[in-house]
Formats: sequence, structure tokens, C-alpha cells
Amino acid sequence: MSASVSPLAPKHYPAMPAIEGVRIATAEAGIKYKGRTDVLLLVFDSEAEAAGVFTRSKCPSAPVDFCRRNLAAGKARAVVVNSGNANAFTGKKGRESTAATAAAASAAVGCTSGEIFLASTGVIGEPLDAGKFSHLLGGMAKDAGADRWLDAAKAIMTTDTYPKVATETVLFGGVPVTINGIAKGAGMIAPDMATMLSFVVTDAPIAAPVLQALLNKAVGGSFNCVTVDSDTSTSDTLMLFSTGRAATRGAPAVTELGDKRLADFAKALGRVLHSLALQLVRDGEGARKMVEVHVSGAKSAASAKRIALSVANSPLVKTAVAGEDANWGRVVMAVGKAGEPADRDLLAIWFGDIRVAHQGERDPTYSEADTSAYMKNEDIRIHVDIGLGRGKATVWTCDLTKEYVAINGDYRS
Amino acid sequence: MSASVSPLAPKHYPAMPAIEGVRIATAEAGIKYKGRTDVLLLVFDSEAEAAGVFTRSKCPSAPVDFCRRNLAAGKARAVVVNSGNANAFTGKKGRESTAATAAAASAAVGCTSGEIFLASTGVIGEPLDAGKFSHLLGGMAKDAGADRWLDAAKAIMTTDTYPKVATETVLFGGVPVTINGIAKGAGMIAPDMATMLSFVVTDAPIAAPVLQALLNKAVGGSFNCVTVDSDTSTSDTLMLFSTGRAATRGAPAVTELGDKRLADFAKALGRVLHSLALQLVRDGEGARKMVEVHVSGAKSAASAKRIALSVANSPLVKTAVAGEDANWGRVVMAVGKAGEPADRDLLAIWFGDIRVAHQGERDPTYSEADTSAYMKNEDIRIHVDIGLGRGKATVWTCDLTKEYVAINGDYRS
Repeated sequence: MSASVSPLAPKHYPAMPAIEGVRIATAEAGIKYKGRTDVLLLVFDSEAEAAGVFTRSKCPSAPVDFCRRNLAAGKARAVVVNSGNANAFTGKKGRESTAATAAAASAAVGCTSGEIFLASTGVIGEPLDAGKFSHLLGGMAKDAGADRWLDAAKAIMTTDTYPKVATETVLFGGVPVTINGIAKGAGMIAPDMATMLSFVVTDAPIAAPVLQALLNKAVGGSFNCVTVDSDTSTSDTLMLFSTGRAATRGAPAVTELGDKRLADFAKALGRVLHSLALQLVRDGEGARKMVEVHVSGAKSAASAKRIALSVANSPLVKTAVAGEDANWGRVVMAVGKAGEPADRDLLAIWFGDIRVAHQGERDPTYSEADTSAYMKNEDIRIHVDIGLGRGKATVWTCDLTKEYVAINGDYRS
Repeated sequence: MSASVSPLAPKHYPAMPAIEGVRIATAEAGIKYKGRTDVLLLVFDSEAEAAGVFTRSKCPSAPVDFCRRNLAAGKARAVVVNSGNANAFTGKKGRESTAATAAAASAAVGCTSGEIFLASTGVIGEPLDAGKFSHLLGGMAKDAGADRWLDAAKAIMTTDTYPKVATETVLFGGVPVTINGIAKGAGMIAPDMATMLSFVVTDAPIAAPVLQALLNKAVGGSFNCVTVDSDTSTSDTLMLFSTGRAATRGAPAVTELGDKRLADFAKALGRVLHSLALQLVRDGEGARKMVEVHVSGAKSAASAKRIALSVANSPLVKTAVAGEDANWGRVVMAVGKAGEPADRDLLAIWFGDIRVAHQGERDPTYSEADTSAYMKNEDIRIHVDIGLGRGKATVWTCDLTKEYVAINGDYRS
């Protein structure tokens, strides 16, 4: 963990309400970190519906492989997460470690290994000794409590400088239901997925296939629109669980994606994921500024997103923002290198509300002083209009600072 | 320019022989820099054959547009290069600037504007006032001398910390011919093209279409295999000229690509471009270490190159090298995110001669001490074997240091 909290950290945290049917425990196992929690157990009192989205890496971690297998059945009784070691690129030892953890967790909560989900985050390539924490799971399952969401978010942090939580309560068939989410991530953050772990739980009674469809859609506008360093982790895991317990208060059981009662829930889920994704960016390693990149006028939405990501991932754009330099020429460069349809002489660029470039050259009213003043803000908005079509997209990133280099130059040692 | 010369700078420079038929002049025009040369004029005493390769940016600079138009005829009488301003994204003013420069150059050497080639490097988006240097070209043409190749390389530098030159002399149909090259580049360096300017001249009598074919091939193994920051410039320009004057000493005129007398020349051209490309990487902004990434065992050569570039462009790999951290887990990550065929459990990774990973996990003989000692070297070699096929590729990059961030956080101001 970094010594100091990001200046972009939330100024306050929401109260995270309990969600019926899920309990939380954390523990200090000393896997890598000392003097902090590094193991999280989520226990579902009965079978929860499960959905998940995982890294697109060709070299996924052992827990990702494990989760993908179990997700086919769509049922969960417990989730075990450890920080400090990713259990990635650990070969046979990695599979033994996930098996041992799952066996301990299933004994602790009284279920099969097929109802356990696992995630690990931290160093890649070092064997994870499940024995360091598997013996704790029985006690954790007994002691788990419903109101420990912030503790849960803290236990899964690595280089994060603050815990990330979000919550929404909406009416679902006239009955209030809650969606709680936690996330971690700070580096190795790029879309598809952002490199991160996130666990979201609701009491709304929604069947696993419907949860999965809602999750697939919501991730497109949230975690898959943020990037810190263009690097994609081996361990990206986003899971959504439903305890279904709102049914006891009269909430309807929904099993079809077309059900109109899902509309408000889907929007609330989107807001939870969006909040968590932006908290991720705002805790980007070394971040001092958040950058929103909005592209309009592209040939298509997909083209707009590729251009926006080209800008957001450009080291030269990101260092210029760090230096509070309104170097819009580098935005032109990043649009040009995206490989997407663009016509230099139609481009317009804004920094905040200031149009700095228009029809392929510097705006006639350009004021270096005004633009430089804008760059001193904590939140920077770059808008590029391509001038060719109606495609648009927005992505979020952070600046690239010397602290990013410092954090990543000696993270492992 | 940076205050201090890169520690990876060449320890000595080759003597750059004169090439018959081309003369060089430089001048201090004060376009942006003070107390240094910033204009280069190459004068061909008679029509030279010309070939060129340019940026793939969709937002090319005005000089790139200008060169592309003139290259159709394949004849050159002069080249004008300025540093300090890229004349990119300058709209109508940019076109007026190239026209004015070309008019002054053609008057200075006595030719048409169609035989002039131009390049500009520096800040993007600020109008380039050709009047700052066009009046100097007449005097420069008169004073130009044959033995000023190092001066030529110095005049085109921007954030470069040292000038880049290379030379080769080979037999061409039994007659010695020379190839001299200069280059600049330090940031905004990525393949297709590396962000840079490079001008190469030979006295071998080779027709323009043949020169172009040789250049297209040689760029693939040189400038298109280096990356500093994955950013592609609007101004990338690599040109190859032949004065043909070796014909007066009996060298054959070659007009067909299949001509066997080209073989040694092609190899020598490859060495010149390779040397210049590596000098570029070794002067990467803030670079303290050079990194060679070699990928073998990929499904194809193209796949190997994409994987190698994914490793070479990963901020997390590059910061680990900067921190002298043998963090091979990040190499796994970068292989995984490349999107190319790969099987985690077949991967092997070497740092130098040390095999750190084998069959999907840490090598059983892995020694942290040995690997950390290796990381203290100035030149780092990372080799990844994918284990699937016979495709291989090598690319070169540098580490990502705090100095890169510092240089790019306030380059423009």
C-alpha cells in the first residue's frame, strides 16, 4: 500500500446497509502484508445466484480458471479473496492452492467446492500457500457479520490508497432492494477488464442467467471504460450475486431478461459499477488528476471508443496532464495514431469548455493563459469532435506521474 | 534538449565520409531553440533519386503531405529540415508555410518546388513562420560542404540528448559505395513508424523504385521494431536518396530489384537503419536501460511481433526494468493481454541467460539474487518462448523512468 492517500479519494463514504442473506468476515493472515487484513470471506446463508465477468488475458490466474468452471452452475455459497499474492502463473501449485482453499471454504460453510468462488490479487508468479489462511476460514464463517462492507473493501486492497464501495437502493416490483459493491484496483488497469476485483451483492430475487446479462451490459459503460496504464491483469474478476432475500418482503422473482421490473434495477446496477470504476481511476497509481476523454462525431460508437482509449492511454497525453500543460497537439497525435477514420482538417478539441482547436488548426481565440489555468483543476475533461459521424464514447483515466514510476519500480521488492 | 546526455549514448562516433553529389549546411534560425542550430539543408548537386516512408498517422503534418506529393516523381534537389516546430495540425497556415519554404529552397538551389523535400519536428499545433529561416537558405546553399554529417544530425535534434549518425561502405558491382544516415527522435516513438526523422544518402546509382523497395524492406527490421512510449508522431519521415555519383568511378546503374549486385548494399542499408533505430531507443526520453524483447515459438512472425510489442510497450514491464526488479510476472501479464495465441502452461521466460519461468510457473532453479544482479545491467534482454509454433520477432525499447515523466510534463512550456 502507498504511504499517502490519493488526493482524488472520496471526501466521504456512503453508509453501506446490510444485505439480507450475506455475511462478511476479514482476517489478517500475513500472506504478504503485515498489520492489515488480507483475507475476505463472503458467506451466503443459502444458495445465491451468481454471475461473473473475467479477464480476457490468455494467461489467466488459477482462481479465474476456478471461477469460470464453477460459474456454469450459477450457484454460490461463499467467496474467498486474498490480497498480496495473485496465484497467477503458478502452474500445478496454483491449481492445488485453489483446490485447498475451496475445500477449506466448503467445509467452513457446509457446501460443495462447486459453490465456492475465489479471487487473488497481488504479485504474479509466486506460489500461494493456501495453508497461510485456509485454517482461518472456519472461524471467519462463524464470526461473519452483515455490516462489514467497508472492512471487506479494505481487505482486498493492494496498492490501492483507499477502499472502494458503492451502494444503491431501488424499488423492485414495489419492494426496496439494495445493491452493494466493493472493488480494488490501482495499477494494471485497462478495459476488458479494468484490472481489478469487484464483488457486488443484491437481495433482489433475480435468476443467474438474468444477472449475467445485466452484468455483461453494465460492465460496458463502467469498468470497460476506464484505463490507468493500458495493462490488463491476469486476475480481473467482477462478480454479481443475488441472495434473493427481498422475496421475503414481497419482491418478485424475476427469471426473464425482458421483465420490465428490471429497468430501475439495471440502472442502479450501472450506477454502482460506474461509481466503483471511477473510484478505481481516481486511485490510479500515482494519480493526481482524473481525466475524462469524450469523443464525438466518430464514424461509430466503437470507433469513438477506440479513439478515446488511444487518447486516454497515450503516455504523452497523460504526462502533459500531470505537468498541467494544455498540450492539445498530443491529443491530435493520439487521434492520428488510433487508426480509426479521422480527417485532420475537421477535428475540434476542447479542454473543459475551452475550444483549443477547430477545423484542423489552433482555435483563433486560443488563450494559453486561460487553458493553462484550466489545467490546474483536479478533474480534466478532454473532448474531441471527429466531425465525420454520430459515434460517441467516454472513457476515464488519470495522469501519469513520477509516483506511478516510483510505485511500479519497486512494487515487488 | 535535456540538460544531460543519456547514459546509453554511443561511446564514440564513426567518421562520416563525404558522399559525392550531396552537400550540407546548418544554421541557427532561432525558431524555438536559442544558441544551437535548428535548420538543415541538404543540397544535391544534380537530381538525386528519392524514396520515402512516412507516418501512418491519420493526422499527418503539412511537410509529410508535401513530401508524399513530391515523392511520386522520385527526384530530389534539396531537403530542408527544421527543429523546434512540427508544422503539424496547422491547417492552411501549415500549407502556406511548406509552400514558402519550398519556394525559397528551389530558388536557392535552382530547381522546381517538386524537387524539394521538407520535414519539421517539434511542437504540434503552433503555426510555423517560414520567414524565420527561408531567407537563410540561399546563403546556406552557397556555403554547403560535404563533410558535415554530424552537424546535420545535431541540427535536427529536439529532446534528443545526442546526435545519431551511421555509415557503411560496401562494394557495389566491385566499386566502393557509401551509405550515410542521420536520425532524430526521443519521444513519441512507436513502430509504423518510430516517431522520428531520418535521412539516408548513398552514392550508389540505384533507381528510385528500387530504392523505395529496399527502404520498405529495411524499415521492417529497424525503425518498425523499436518503441519508446507507443505514441506515433504526426511527422515520421524516413527518406533515402541516391546521388548516383559512384557511377563516375565505375559503379553499375541498377534499375531492377532482382539485380544480384544489390545484395550487399541491401544488407548494409539494413545495418545503417538498424544502428540509427537502436540509437533512437538508447536516447528514449529518460532512458537509463535498453531492453531487447525477443519472442520465439509464436504461431507466426506477425503474432510474435505483436506479443513482443505488448511486452515492450507495457508501462508495468518498463517501470519494473527501471526499478531493476526482475518482475517476470508482468511479462506474463503482457503476453496475456496481447490477444495472440498463447498457452500459459507452455510459456518460458528468460532474463538474459537466466530462465525465470518454465512450463507455466516459476523455474524450479529460480534465484532471486542472480536475477536481481542481472537487472543491474544497462542492456536487458527478455526472451519469451510461447511454445506453440515457429514465429519469432525481436523489438527494442527502453525503461520508463521518472525522467520520462519530467521531460514530458513540461516539454512544451
